[in-house]
Amino acid sequence: MDNCIFCKIVAGELPSYKVYEDDKVLAFLDIKPVNPGHTLVVSKAHYQNLEEIPEDELIAITIVIKKLGKLLKDKLAIEGYNVCENNDSVADQEVPHLHFHVIPRHVGDGLRTWKHVDYQAGEAEDIIKKLQN
Amino acid sequence: MDNCIFCKIVAGELPSYKVYEDDKVLAFLDIKPVNPGHTLVVSKAHYQNLEEIPEDELIAITIVIKKLGKLLKDKLAIEGYNVCENNDSVADQEVPHLHFHVIPRHVGDGLRTWKHVDYQAGEAEDIIKKLQN
Repeated sequence: MDNCIFCKIVAGELPSYKVYEDDKVLAFLDIKPVNPGHTLVVSKAHYQNLEEIPEDELIAITIVIKKLGKLLKDKLAIEGYNVCENNDSVADQEVPHLHFHVIPRHVGDGLRTWKHVDYQAGEAEDIIKKLQN
Repeated sequence: MDNCIFCKIVAGELPSYKVYEDDKVLAFLDIKPVNPGHTLVVSKAHYQNLEEIPEDELIAITIVIKKLGKLLKDKLAIEGYNVCENNDSVADQEVPHLHFHVIPRHVGDGLRTWKHVDYQAGEAEDIIKKLQN
């Protein structure tokens, strides 16, 4: 897609530090990482989000992520990692080309996942009713 | 696995608000959500993380997540969602049974993804060398 930074990286029109590549998937370092080694895994074709991407291309990405996690652990001496994918700008998707973040984690890196809260009485039941409608 | 809270939910020994179920996958409401409708998607069999789960079961989860995102958007009037999966305690994995979080997002919900930083000169090149070794 014109003016998509990830499409330009896929096409080689912009440089990247490539970690993995096949016919459907490209993995490259996020140039502004959360932690060093932070890798983005994208479909080569342009889809905005999980709803748009066909199942076979999503499966291809998933298998790459599974292998990448082990690679990062083995080669970068990390103790764990987060896999995150943001759908739409309200969810902090900054580039509208589907991408998964694989973020290496270390003891004491200071990152924390979001705070969990309690449901009000009846709230979870209302949600289940809506989802089952 | 004994003493695994998610294995007990899968077995029906603990209650849950079920969103989806098939022979390999269960999706249920996180009872302490980040936002209302926050859903956990787990393999019915016990695996700790992405490295342990076999490809076919991971693919089954992935397809459920793709459908679930659209369901949450359609039924809960949300504008987007995050998909997050944490590998190992250092990455904030609180229950050692592989699970994906699907977190509904709204404008103004106050949640923010992690801060990105710059690489030092040569740092990205060093990482690529390690990964290619």
